[in-house]
Amino acid sequence: MAEVELITVPARRGRAARLNAGQAIKIVNTHGSQVVDFWAFSAEDLTEFLSMEHLRATLQRILPHAGDALVTNRRRTILQFEEDTSPGMHDTLMAACDVYRYALLGCTAYHDNCTDNLHAALRQIGLAAPECPAPLNLWMNIPVGQSGRTEWGEPLSKPGDYVVLRAAMNCIAVMSTCPQDILPINGAACTPAEVHYRILS
Amino acid sequence: MAEVELITVPARRGRAARLNAGQAIKIVNTHGSQVVDFWAFSAEDLTEFLSMEHLRATLQRILPHAGDALVTNRRRTILQFEEDTSPGMHDTLMAACDVYRYALLGCTAYHDNCTDNLHAALRQIGLAAPECPAPLNLWMNIPVGQSGRTEWGEPLSKPGDYVVLRAAMNCIAVMSTCPQDILPINGAACTPAEVHYRILS
Repeated sequence: MAEVELITVPARRGRAARLNAGQAIKIVNTHGSQVVDFWAFSAEDLTEFLSMEHLRATLQRILPHAGDALVTNRRRTILQFEEDTSPGMHDTLMAACDVYRYALLGCTAYHDNCTDNLHAALRQIGLAAPECPAPLNLWMNIPVGQSGRTEWGEPLSKPGDYVVLRAAMNCIAVMSTCPQDILPINGAACTPAEVHYRILS
Repeated sequence: MAEVELITVPARRGRAARLNAGQAIKIVNTHGSQVVDFWAFSAEDLTEFLSMEHLRATLQRILPHAGDALVTNRRRTILQFEEDTSPGMHDTLMAACDVYRYALLGCTAYHDNCTDNLHAALRQIGLAAPECPAPLNLWMNIPVGQSGRTEWGEPLSKPGDYVVLRAAMNCIAVMSTCPQDILPINGAACTPAEVHYRILS
């Protein structure tokens, strides 16, 4: 498996990467407790994208596991979830954070957020997202209780844990290192950190 | 509470209704086991709409209950969930059915579906949806097990059960009587049925 350059997604920022069908992206939780909001769009038509509500219906499960096909809003496989070295707690339920979220949490100044990071990351490669789909929140630990109540847990991952997602179609992968520093969603220290990724051919 | 005309949403079809802030919509599960995919869009800007992923984050719960504020993708209250005579099993997890879903279930001819019903219902009142948001699936019974596995349950509602949703902003409410007749999501008979609604001032 040929590995190319290791690329940094700085803390609190977004990055987009083009994947050809057959290539994979390896996303490394370098410091161990950073949530990465993840999206994928068809390179041919950005209105087709990885969709959490279609994924749950297809898997008949809230959480995707390594081995699962990840599907779009047209129920086609966009990525194969090949590897996961973490305990497998990711999240499909929660929206990307946004300026509205931080305003409700008491922020009066602008706060970095995953929704704006998605749009900025795509603009950086000359594209525009038609919307902000519900993200696959890698390593975000949202336990669901019996009554359907959810909690904002700390990640169960450790430094160096990674996932490998292999493209089933030409697509654009987008990552945001979640800038949440008010709730302990990125660990008890509430300190967003950088992560790294590689494109694998 | 002034009640106006009782309006039918035929089986397998969609209808849209304009609500002014302060008005409410009462949706009646006339025959008792019909799932209604429900959406709401801001009348001023259709890119703001009731959003399941933002709702779950706000409620910190998978299911909304009577008494809850239902929020948009800008985390503003669009509707107040005022009344629910059913046991309260609705669904926020599953995508609206679509042609891709029915193709995967083996249909070779066109099958009515909630996604197309949304778009047709809005066109009928001169509007266009910017996308098909994840719906609030009224009376759709999706039990979630401890491992996060989901089931396609039959509705727990009975004939005449209703919900009342009161508009917190001028909005467009859209309903689709889910045409699913392959899985027992609309009851064991797999027979989609009409429902009715009223606008309450």
